[in-house]
Amino acid sequence: MATLLHIDASIQGDRSVSRQLTARAADAWRAAHPDGTVIYRDLGAEPVPHFDSTANLSRGLPPDQHTPAQAESWALISELVGEVAAADTVLLGLPIYNFGAPSTVKAWLDHLIVPGLAFDPETGEGLLGDCDFIVVASRGGGYAEGTPRHGWDHASAWLPHGLSLVGIEPRFITTELTLAPSTPAMAGLVPLAEESRRQAEAAVDELWVPAGANA
Amino acid sequence: MATLLHIDASIQGDRSVSRQLTARAADAWRAAHPDGTVIYRDLGAEPVPHFDSTANLSRGLPPDQHTPAQAESWALISELVGEVAAADTVLLGLPIYNFGAPSTVKAWLDHLIVPGLAFDPETGEGLLGDCDFIVVASRGGGYAEGTPRHGWDHASAWLPHGLSLVGIEPRFITTELTLAPSTPAMAGLVPLAEESRRQAEAAVDELWVPAGANA
Repeated sequence: MATLLHIDASIQGDRSVSRQLTARAADAWRAAHPDGTVIYRDLGAEPVPHFDSTANLSRGLPPDQHTPAQAESWALISELVGEVAAADTVLLGLPIYNFGAPSTVKAWLDHLIVPGLAFDPETGEGLLGDCDFIVVASRGGGYAEGTPRHGWDHASAWLPHGLSLVGIEPRFITTELTLAPSTPAMAGLVPLAEESRRQAEAAVDELWVPAGANA
Repeated sequence: MATLLHIDASIQGDRSVSRQLTARAADAWRAAHPDGTVIYRDLGAEPVPHFDSTANLSRGLPPDQHTPAQAESWALISELVGEVAAADTVLLGLPIYNFGAPSTVKAWLDHLIVPGLAFDPETGEGLLGDCDFIVVASRGGGYAEGTPRHGWDHASAWLPHGLSLVGIEPRFITTELTLAPSTPAMAGLVPLAEESRRQAEAAVDELWVPAGANA
């Protein structure tokens, strides 16, 4: 059965552009997969803890030798890896805060990189590559080539490298200048922001053909 | 009075190369500033929470209007900004996990970017630039120009951009290939790893001249 893993990370609630776009994408996925299952994880509202030494040690021990704290970490690791392994499609809303990914997204990925479950410790081969991983990236400013902050989006630059460890090659739908409508100094950029949003929405709408529609 | 803020982030305890090098640097700083004060923060052992919507809302309200949860977030924000503001020198041990900064370092920085305290909301000018910010970066693999993973160190690439928001320009002492001695497949890289470590230690030893030494 088709399964979508939908992950949000923004701390901006309903105002979040990444959440608005992943919701639009998830609706389109549901329309195309009326019998499908959706798993939802909200890293913004219910963050996973930082990956710590307890979690690190839990990966090197057989579960029956875990301390209670290690068992708790291992249960979370297994749950997070299991969600990705179960999904045909992963949809991640990726805002950028202070030029990097939300710390919750980094913590989520750190839990995912598990020898044996997510990659082969002998060969290094990733074991979670059987999914279509779609990132809906949203950026408040402008980072296009030729702008002063070209190269400052370290969220979108880092994520494919991190995910490569488990064999995942994400594809991106990106919208930017999202702060323009609410930032007086960016007023002149509102038309560009609107065009960026329109293009992202069009890309989302083309992801899946609704079930029963004439192609 | 001279004040050092010493921050570690590794989850590897005593085996951490970044911790070994920041400890060496902090000892050198103490020798050069026998009357100085050291503030120590261990993001690896006692991580700060992810920056969440409560923390975000706390920044936009007068403290006397804070909910209890917002007051708690605001107290942490004030403490973290206060530590940097009090320091002449900041020393940050920066390991790299899965090609990015530890999520705890990102969460620490997210708490630091406070309008009014850390930057001027009118001009955007950073208000915490009066310190010498030294990053001791440690990387398990090799990321030098010409290697397959050149450009994959998103921790060191991101941090200066994040800190620029509060006016800080960090300088880096970097050691790499730290996993070579414990990784059979990297055995041939051990001499390069040892040379990298030696150079980092030499750079640390040159940071401060001990008090009373003949220059």
